[in-house]
Amino acid sequence: MEKIKPRTLSGFMELLPPAQMQMDRIMDIIRTSYELYGYTPLDTPLIEASEILLAKGGGETEKQIYRFTKGDSDLSLRFDLTVPLAKYVSLHYAELAFPFKRCQIGKVYRGERAQRGRFREFYQADVDVIGDGALDITNDAEIPAIIYTVFSRLGLKRFQIRINNRKILNGFYAMLGLSEKSGDIMRTVDKLEKIGKDGVRAILVDDLSLSAAQADEILGFTAIRGTNGKVLAALDGYRGRNETFDQGLDELRTVARYLDGFGVPETNFAVDLTIARGLDYYTGTVYETTLLDHPEIGSVCSGGRYDNLAEYYTDRQLPGVGISIGLTRLFYVLGEQGMLNGDVPTAPADVLILPMTEDFSDAVALATMLRGRGLRTQLYTEAKKFKAKMSYADKLGVPFVLFLGEDEIANGVVTCKNMKTGEQEKLSGADAAEKIAAFVESQKQLAPILEV
Amino acid sequence: MEKIKPRTLSGFMELLPPAQMQMDRIMDIIRTSYELYGYTPLDTPLIEASEILLAKGGGETEKQIYRFTKGDSDLSLRFDLTVPLAKYVSLHYAELAFPFKRCQIGKVYRGERAQRGRFREFYQADVDVIGDGALDITNDAEIPAIIYTVFSRLGLKRFQIRINNRKILNGFYAMLGLSEKSGDIMRTVDKLEKIGKDGVRAILVDDLSLSAAQADEILGFTAIRGTNGKVLAALDGYRGRNETFDQGLDELRTVARYLDGFGVPETNFAVDLTIARGLDYYTGTVYETTLLDHPEIGSVCSGGRYDNLAEYYTDRQLPGVGISIGLTRLFYVLGEQGMLNGDVPTAPADVLILPMTEDFSDAVALATMLRGRGLRTQLYTEAKKFKAKMSYADKLGVPFVLFLGEDEIANGVVTCKNMKTGEQEKLSGADAAEKIAAFVESQKQLAPILEV
Repeated sequence: MEKIKPRTLSGFMELLPPAQMQMDRIMDIIRTSYELYGYTPLDTPLIEASEILLAKGGGETEKQIYRFTKGDSDLSLRFDLTVPLAKYVSLHYAELAFPFKRCQIGKVYRGERAQRGRFREFYQADVDVIGDGALDITNDAEIPAIIYTVFSRLGLKRFQIRINNRKILNGFYAMLGLSEKSGDIMRTVDKLEKIGKDGVRAILVDDLSLSAAQADEILGFTAIRGTNGKVLAALDGYRGRNETFDQGLDELRTVARYLDGFGVPETNFAVDLTIARGLDYYTGTVYETTLLDHPEIGSVCSGGRYDNLAEYYTDRQLPGVGISIGLTRLFYVLGEQGMLNGDVPTAPADVLILPMTEDFSDAVALATMLRGRGLRTQLYTEAKKFKAKMSYADKLGVPFVLFLGEDEIANGVVTCKNMKTGEQEKLSGADAAEKIAAFVESQKQLAPILEV
Repeated sequence: MEKIKPRTLSGFMELLPPAQMQMDRIMDIIRTSYELYGYTPLDTPLIEASEILLAKGGGETEKQIYRFTKGDSDLSLRFDLTVPLAKYVSLHYAELAFPFKRCQIGKVYRGERAQRGRFREFYQADVDVIGDGALDITNDAEIPAIIYTVFSRLGLKRFQIRINNRKILNGFYAMLGLSEKSGDIMRTVDKLEKIGKDGVRAILVDDLSLSAAQADEILGFTAIRGTNGKVLAALDGYRGRNETFDQGLDELRTVARYLDGFGVPETNFAVDLTIARGLDYYTGTVYETTLLDHPEIGSVCSGGRYDNLAEYYTDRQLPGVGISIGLTRLFYVLGEQGMLNGDVPTAPADVLILPMTEDFSDAVALATMLRGRGLRTQLYTEAKKFKAKMSYADKLGVPFVLFLGEDEIANGVVTCKNMKTGEQEKLSGADAAEKIAAFVESQKQLAPILEV
């Protein structure tokens, strides 16, 4: 028969078993962290009617979307988790309790140009809290706590949650009489880290026709730096000139005030006026999260406050605040940076039983006992030479191998080999189980990410 | 703005939060059960090149597949997890250890005619073990143990794993000189439960042109019933007439012999000669699993042994054995039958804090403390009347509400309300945490499925 060459599509991540285990551990930590804050997990279809997903329309989305017909239906694959959430909340409005807190970890699709580290199928891990008509600002203060919990549990210390408020920016530009250009200006200021102060000034003056004085005032404003207290104090100096500005500053102050109570250390948090998020979507608080030793990675968790989640589907005002982790890209970059903790167990089993007898009855009973104690157990029953069996154990990376031959069976023991130390001892089945369980327990606390 | 009516596509399951929690619990039990047997979890792309998925081609698959182009690429959504596994194993062959044991729970797509209880997007939950060249029969004996573990943990007792061996059937038909018609015959016999003995005989004689004697011998053979020992003894009567038959009987005997060791009670297992699985794909052991009180549901977990997983992609002989649970349909049917355990907690949080003060500092600190102890905690900060707050708590279904007003803060206590009993008491934060944690722990053992 002629064979078809097996391949996986470019831009689609497909992991080998050990890497998949690492990915699963990271995903599990994100999920349980989100749930700790009372967010309910959702799982919505990958496919939606195109008119639903493209309700907003335009821009990159329309170009990148996977859209196709099946029968009479015009279908698309979701390109984020926010539009499906908007649909979900407007569709099931009557059955939900508000504020509606949901988390979702799921694959999304964007037909981007294929290049290294860019994915067309990738996981997003989102939390959003949606209010009905209004949503208290304290929700915005809780979001950094979720980010902090996620990244701390993943094993990171040197990360910073950077926060700003679009109202402060909008208000500031209104003071300068630049409201109409504020979107363009913010998108420009957003490039500060990439193209530097001079690059930004050039765009502001040359492309956006600002006066040199206006450009300088903007650069001066975004250069306000220092401790959160210092930045907030500097912002107080602008008070009373614009209502939106004052409101944004009040919000930012509230967020900063509750942070300590929410358990976020000052070192992991910074008010940063350069953060704007290049999306018109956000209307209040905005978040970015950077790894201090890896600024080149960019933001690993971003989001913000929006006024109106589902305006394309309902007249109801549904404000919300949320964040998203681009999980697939994050995992890829962590791997590239050598930041995945190699000590985290990635074997499919805690223990491998190698029977040395023809009849497997005792080995089967041993496997059943170990599984009954919650140990992930593989039983190897292929007719192979000893060397091949040990090479299988090595390749799997199991921490323990139990040998069971006539001798062991006669003496009611197993020979337990610690594959890392090479140490080998005869133990009762129960003692072996206890030893393995203790090791497994000790590995559970290992964080999947290492700072290097 | 004109609104687009929010909707979810027909044939796509989208659950409300409580149902999603039940589904997640079931999925979690399946996943951890699979992993207990040393199967490594995989996650492969939803989209593959069409030539990969359609390598086998023909039949329903080609009609039902979601196929589309993006740029120059001819793409399809996977319609099962087996074909992607075949691709994975042949593509990554050099990097895998064999026998390769993998589990996968993932969505698959089939454009079936939409009707109640039929899904176009649905979860399959698969385990497969793949040998390199050969695969010991003991693996076939372990599979019923996995099925038993899954369904027991889900809360079921009255289910039966029915097993047969295609070699016994093929050998038997060879004895009758009916080898060439054996596929058609088996597909007919497979309908025994649906259309009855007379219906099957009619097809055999009228459509497949068997003699009445042949048809009777076939019906007599498939009518062999009784305890496993009795059935196996009856089969021994056919020994020595066909090599394939004898081999199949040896395999079946081995599988039956190890069952007890693998912890599968005889009551949950039956050798059943009517099981053939209507797929040419299987070549040895075949499995079906039925709920004894709900035969109308059909098999909830099926699978079997195949000789050659990846023949379309590689010359290597890769035999395997595996099973699949059609999870979405199972969940739907369980719901319809009223078999989902309503006592299983489905609230997004273990506890809801209702602050009764303007400043939330104490409530925030309380939330942080509870989360630090692993309790899923929601903090309600909306400016609503007390009644609206309580109605929110009711709607969420949280088991505990903690009130925190000036009085409580002054006395260093919280008012803890058990939402089920209505009982209300003043406790220290730590005592409240302990009480809630004990309740959460007690709920963990609740099985998600009830036999009714």
